[in-house]
Amino acid sequence: MAGHLLARTLSRDSFSAALGDEAFVRAMLAFESALASAQAECGIVPAAAAQAIATACATLRPSPDRLAADGKLAGSLAIPLVKALTEEVRSLDRKAASFVHYGSTSQDVLDTAMVLCIRPCVEEADKILAKAIAQFAAHARQHASTVMLGRTMLQPAIPLTAGIKIARWATALARCRARVLETVALALCVQLGGPVGTLDTLGPKRVQVRQAVARRLELADGRSWQSHRDEFVSFAGSLALVVFTIGKIAGDIALLCQPEVAEMMESAPRKGVGGSSAMPHKRNPVSCLQALAATARVPGLMATLLAAGHEHERAIGGWQAELATVADLVDCLGGALDALERIAAGLVVDAARMKHNLEALQGLVFSERLSRLLMQSMDRAQAQSQVDDWCTSAVSQRRSLQEVVAAAQPDLDLGQVFSLKALVEDLAPVLEEELAAL
Amino acid sequence: MAGHLLARTLSRDSFSAALGDEAFVRAMLAFESALASAQAECGIVPAAAAQAIATACATLRPSPDRLAADGKLAGSLAIPLVKALTEEVRSLDRKAASFVHYGSTSQDVLDTAMVLCIRPCVEEADKILAKAIAQFAAHARQHASTVMLGRTMLQPAIPLTAGIKIARWATALARCRARVLETVALALCVQLGGPVGTLDTLGPKRVQVRQAVARRLELADGRSWQSHRDEFVSFAGSLALVVFTIGKIAGDIALLCQPEVAEMMESAPRKGVGGSSAMPHKRNPVSCLQALAATARVPGLMATLLAAGHEHERAIGGWQAELATVADLVDCLGGALDALERIAAGLVVDAARMKHNLEALQGLVFSERLSRLLMQSMDRAQAQSQVDDWCTSAVSQRRSLQEVVAAAQPDLDLGQVFSLKALVEDLAPVLEEELAAL
Amino acid sequence: MAGHLLARTLSRDSFSAALGDEAFVRAMLAFESALASAQAECGIVPAAAAQAIATACATLRPSPDRLAADGKLAGSLAIPLVKALTEEVRSLDRKAASFVHYGSTSQDVLDTAMVLCIRPCVEEADKILAKAIAQFAAHARQHASTVMLGRTMLQPAIPLTAGIKIARWATALARCRARVLETVALALCVQLGGPVGTLDTLGPKRVQVRQAVARRLELADGRSWQSHRDEFVSFAGSLALVVFTIGKIAGDIALLCQPEVAEMMESAPRKGVGGSSAMPHKRNPVSCLQALAATARVPGLMATLLAAGHEHERAIGGWQAELATVADLVDCLGGALDALERIAAGLVVDAARMKHNLEALQGLVFSERLSRLLMQSMDRAQAQSQVDDWCTSAVSQRRSLQEVVAAAQPDLDLGQVFSLKALVEDLAPVLEEELAAL
Amino acid sequence: MAGHLLARTLSRDSFSAALGDEAFVRAMLAFESALASAQAECGIVPAAAAQAIATACATLRPSPDRLAADGKLAGSLAIPLVKALTEEVRSLDRKAASFVHYGSTSQDVLDTAMVLCIRPCVEEADKILAKAIAQFAAHARQHASTVMLGRTMLQPAIPLTAGIKIARWATALARCRARVLETVALALCVQLGGPVGTLDTLGPKRVQVRQAVARRLELADGRSWQSHRDEFVSFAGSLALVVFTIGKIAGDIALLCQPEVAEMMESAPRKGVGGSSAMPHKRNPVSCLQALAATARVPGLMATLLAAGHEHERAIGGWQAELATVADLVDCLGGALDALERIAAGLVVDAARMKHNLEALQGLVFSERLSRLLMQSMDRAQAQSQVDDWCTSAVSQRRSLQEVVAAAQPDLDLGQVFSLKALVEDLAPVLEEELAAL
Repeated sequence: MAGHLLARTLSRDSFSAALGDEAFVRAMLAFESALASAQAECGIVPAAAAQAIATACATLRPSPDRLAADGKLAGSLAIPLVKALTEEVRSLDRKAASFVHYGSTSQDVLDTAMVLCIRPCVEEADKILAKAIAQFAAHARQHASTVMLGRTMLQPAIPLTAGIKIARWATALARCRARVLETVALALCVQLGGPVGTLDTLGPKRVQVRQAVARRLELADGRSWQSHRDEFVSFAGSLALVVFTIGKIAGDIALLCQPEVAEMMESAPRKGVGGSSAMPHKRNPVSCLQALAATARVPGLMATLLAAGHEHERAIGGWQAELATVADLVDCLGGALDALERIAAGLVVDAARMKHNLEALQGLVFSERLSRLLMQSMDRAQAQSQVDDWCTSAVSQRRSLQEVVAAAQPDLDLGQVFSLKALVEDLAPVLEEELAAL
Repeated sequence: MAGHLLARTLSRDSFSAALGDEAFVRAMLAFESALASAQAECGIVPAAAAQAIATACATLRPSPDRLAADGKLAGSLAIPLVKALTEEVRSLDRKAASFVHYGSTSQDVLDTAMVLCIRPCVEEADKILAKAIAQFAAHARQHASTVMLGRTMLQPAIPLTAGIKIARWATALARCRARVLETVALALCVQLGGPVGTLDTLGPKRVQVRQAVARRLELADGRSWQSHRDEFVSFAGSLALVVFTIGKIAGDIALLCQPEVAEMMESAPRKGVGGSSAMPHKRNPVSCLQALAATARVPGLMATLLAAGHEHERAIGGWQAELATVADLVDCLGGALDALERIAAGLVVDAARMKHNLEALQGLVFSERLSRLLMQSMDRAQAQSQVDDWCTSAVSQRRSLQEVVAAAQPDLDLGQVFSLKALVEDLAPVLEEELAAL
Repeated sequence: MAGHLLARTLSRDSFSAALGDEAFVRAMLAFESALASAQAECGIVPAAAAQAIATACATLRPSPDRLAADGKLAGSLAIPLVKALTEEVRSLDRKAASFVHYGSTSQDVLDTAMVLCIRPCVEEADKILAKAIAQFAAHARQHASTVMLGRTMLQPAIPLTAGIKIARWATALARCRARVLETVALALCVQLGGPVGTLDTLGPKRVQVRQAVARRLELADGRSWQSHRDEFVSFAGSLALVVFTIGKIAGDIALLCQPEVAEMMESAPRKGVGGSSAMPHKRNPVSCLQALAATARVPGLMATLLAAGHEHERAIGGWQAELATVADLVDCLGGALDALERIAAGLVVDAARMKHNLEALQGLVFSERLSRLLMQSMDRAQAQSQVDDWCTSAVSQRRSLQEVVAAAQPDLDLGQVFSLKALVEDLAPVLEEELAAL
Repeated sequence: MAGHLLARTLSRDSFSAALGDEAFVRAMLAFESALASAQAECGIVPAAAAQAIATACATLRPSPDRLAADGKLAGSLAIPLVKALTEEVRSLDRKAASFVHYGSTSQDVLDTAMVLCIRPCVEEADKILAKAIAQFAAHARQHASTVMLGRTMLQPAIPLTAGIKIARWATALARCRARVLETVALALCVQLGGPVGTLDTLGPKRVQVRQAVARRLELADGRSWQSHRDEFVSFAGSLALVVFTIGKIAGDIALLCQPEVAEMMESAPRKGVGGSSAMPHKRNPVSCLQALAATARVPGLMATLLAAGHEHERAIGGWQAELATVADLVDCLGGALDALERIAAGLVVDAARMKHNLEALQGLVFSERLSRLLMQSMDRAQAQSQVDDWCTSAVSQRRSLQEVVAAAQPDLDLGQVFSLKALVEDLAPVLEEELAAL
């Protein structure tokens, strides 16, 4: 669940569900069930008790709002949950009640539940990223010969191809995907340590039980990470970089779909998408908007994760803020991916307009190529000075640079300088190198 | 509504309600109703139409989840809301439907609705702060003569009184309260500007209508602030400083209630509050925890508000992220105030333990006072050197500094140096000056 | 001093000097001198000693690098400074050495020195802001009739005037200016409290001495704020909002000076400003760049200030990080103001291009005005539906909306709908209201 | 160089030097020299020209302040640098001047120079971390049997050993070390792309030249990352996590060296380290202070890196802010490592005081172990209820829990429950598992 109604208009439904109240309560109960079952396997808890606990976990339907209210006074959501579960178990099997949550602590429940809720989001993220990468790669190949302006500091620089630009988006996403897969393997592991991470209630069987719980929950095993959160924050950082990269792409597209530029659209216009409540002619890039809103929220959330203190064996405030913030971060990831999914599928590239915008600059963007030609017969300073003069003439006379130069030095072979075809050939290896990284 | 279930265990119920789905939808409808009514007053909309719109606004019960889903595609929550409202109005009065949301834009609805939802939170905050300030001031007066260690860098410095320490908390809160009142007056005003803030549909009557809407909603009037958010962010900053200050107080108390220090408790122990799921002896400072969790989240949220871009007449992503983030910030404020309310009411000061901790330092914290006495007959370097020697002796011999000095220089009149009573008298004006600022 | 060489390319020279090593050392010495002199005035320190200290403060030239190295081990820059000063004083007047830094603490020196260094920056900021506001107001009046596209989500919305847009920048800056003046009065006051803010060495004369120090340093008096930093952080927040607002303006201009838009330039092109090392045709908006770089840094810095803990009577780490960060924040302010100064002076508005871009949209941005005309004879839904159809025709036939409508309904009086003159008249009061706020 | 004088008291000298003006200018020149030399190798530039350029790069001593001033107007520090270099080369070899910076762009120079300056810091960081890990591991083994309180929410939980606590610090640092090594390999690569990352001036030889430059600078090769900064920010994130982890350790120690706790000291007291300018008895934990100040600054800096926009092929503001911020982040890393180096070498563990603090809690922290004993003959709820009663008695009678229980149930065998030796044996495998991860 993604908080305020306004935040929910920027979220992805499946992520909202995965982080919702219902899912989190079920995950806490899944932990308790797995714990009892693992302890039964290891001979610590009677099999019948573990069975009763499993049954109660499956049937208990505690009110999330009630849990939240009681959890506030108790200092942890897990305390009323364990209490409710213990009562439920007791009603099934009086003796089994003693074995609920045995040897564990609040943090075990909450950390593991959070990890369980995040896991499907990460799995879905991987699929969306894989598909978007493939779609961008296809766009890139399709536009291998589509020349467009490169832009630096929002000003025209020299041309490149739309293929190269889009291929770079794809490889950036591919790096993000790999990064998440690496960090997730280290971070999404079971938390089971008891009060101070030593799990000493379970004595020599502690590792055996922990591994059995992890196996049941299909999580990685791991030593207690109660107040050493570096892997978890590192994982969150890898998610942040996914959003950061989607934001880079969405930002580029939002700039390119300004009508004065009009070189790309996030998708073909569609009735009911991106209209205005006041202006019938408007088509807003709502997917870019969604991605950029997520992008705007993530840096502050990461700052929170990095700033949270983790005193001694469990933090006072820092840990609690961290978990709530990670949930918001995953929600932002969902929003960004939601947008990416639509953008990668629907991206519209207007090659004609790209050519038009290039030509509107009167060939000035080829000045560097022209300098290179001149440098065959003079030094660089002379060449740049000559080119500067011609550029000035082109601007003042409103003629193309090519015309100006052709008039001034009819014998110069300008073909390669101003030829888009030659440019595309020159740049082909750049695209190839980029795509080879996928 | 405060997002993830874990975040809700850290929230204040009344704030959660004020920011909840239901409240936000009602606020959006209140805006639409006030707009039509104001336009009727100004002769722009037929009275009957305004009446139909008011009726529809009162009866419409749109599904928040549905609005969120449709709002995502539309790019704004306001679009499906206006659509649903228009349909509702049409069913009541076909002609009136033309006048729904007339001359307005999505941002008018959402900004004004957010302001309407925040207002009661600010009013409640003011009451909580006022009460906490008074309670802390009473604690301060009560402990005017309770000497305790001052601590710098978590090390003992020289003594002050518990009264001074608590009075400073009170005056800090009082400054926060005043700051909120100042910024709120500038920030919580109506948003009514139409697409680009010129409200040109309403022509010469634009100001008249805007003021009439503001009056109906009991908000301040104000020129459009669609993409100039400085007053709003400044207001948010004043809320952030409330949380910052509560966090300072909660942090001090959390340190003081370490059992090894044990000089304060956030409240007397109470069954069911702050217990542990694993350790029967534990009494966790859960109010401090709640405050500190809020404190940990706020800096990142403020960074988001300050980093959000506001391009041209309405942002793409930045504005949307800002509103969602302000809701989270107000939720954190609620959590911090919730904790403050309990802390200010329940604070326990252990004067005996304060004295004990002071004495445990063998009088070393009076070394500066001792230096001053010596400086009556020698220069400061000599005095400090002499005092250093005595301190070293006291430590190595495990005796009190007073004993060591008395043995070394029996003629020195040490009465004032080591007298707590003298100290309290010396410090009384400091407390008075502090309390005078309330 | 603005840190890394790259940061210094983004700074304002006068601010860098005000925050530089030399200035900070002088400010620390100014504090010590004022302290001794004030104590002499109050009869605590012999006049001769105060004179010797003043002389030493005026002549001492400690090596900043050496102070930094020694300060690291000591835990405070003030300790080696006070040590060096004491030695210098001793060489002048042996007895006076006892009175150096008397009753004070490291934090008194450092906080007050920082305040002294910031003050001239704030005074300069006020002047730059005042001038920029006046210049923007003049631009606004000059372009009262220059119609341009309003843009929301980077898409064309409806037109406004360049005057209104620029006037809003001016009023936002005016609010920022007022906000700084308010917070500065509360924040830039002397720090003088001794180890725990009680200044007990000075006993009953503490307030008298403190006021005398403040008077000498031309600072406001104030009770100790050693670990209650709310006013100081609030002041920093007011600076952050100046940068935020300059960033909004610079962002708008950077977008408007994209060659495809070309409606404004930050300044007329000038040799040597904003050229490229590789592309002779480039003219980069380097003032916008400078402002936007500052804007990008400030939110994170504010997060640091709000996240810093201030335990008990002096923090361990949080205070030290705060002061270093405030220096960076003021440096960013300098960079943003540096850019603003050039932008406000040099802004170029291209009215012809604004008209051209408006017309390139075939009159679609007048669709809302057209709807209003139709609503005189039909309801709003019908009107919008009709306008939608005409817009679609205009797009598909590449004709202006006015032509399409004129052909379809020759009897409609379209004059007011598509008339820029009428539009300017409609909008004049909006500009007036905005400028009236200055 | 670490900015403000106050920041420099928190820095590491070698890092300050590596990021200083001199080092950065030399790194820019190293890039230009390597570029020309690589181009000569590839037959693009005459060998004599490359030689002249190398000579000029070695001898040129541009004024950093002048570069910063000119760079501000030019929009990049590289522009005046290239200009000065070109003039220097021209004075040596007129024709060679044409080949300075050939095919490159400002960003190539600055990004590569930054990477070159960071590299030695990372290498040094690795050495410091390796040593600290080894030292903490040795401390951990030495204190394998030293029982201390585990603490959660700053309250006593159940005991663990100092060995386990310190071993966890070591393994966290080891994870950090591995993480940096991974990200550095992906991030610290050459930047060579020309204006839009296509390096098209060099045509088919672009990759060959780029690899030759990388080889000369001993950097990894890599495709242009001008506006795709994910690997660079990910690398910065790995540095942030080093500081985060050092901050966790320093925070724990700062709490443990409160005199009321007194279980650890960052180092044995030493003359001149951590004294107070006002209080002769003080010994401040200045290394913890230094680490915590760095920790406080890093989250905001990371937020800046993640929030910086990177429009199209080069950002306006975002990139420039990023580089300046990365320099600050590396400086914070230096400060944190500086502190870690001293802490790991000097850590003092007071086993007797740990035992004392444990015993001061009257055995209540063994209540969970006592419950387990009782659960051999009753269910958990009964056991906890019984233990609760005994705890209450112990508190009210100021007796140890063991005495209370022994009096109530003389037949219970309490030996294992309250035996520290038994506890240490129980916990030995936990320490072993932790250390095995090193």
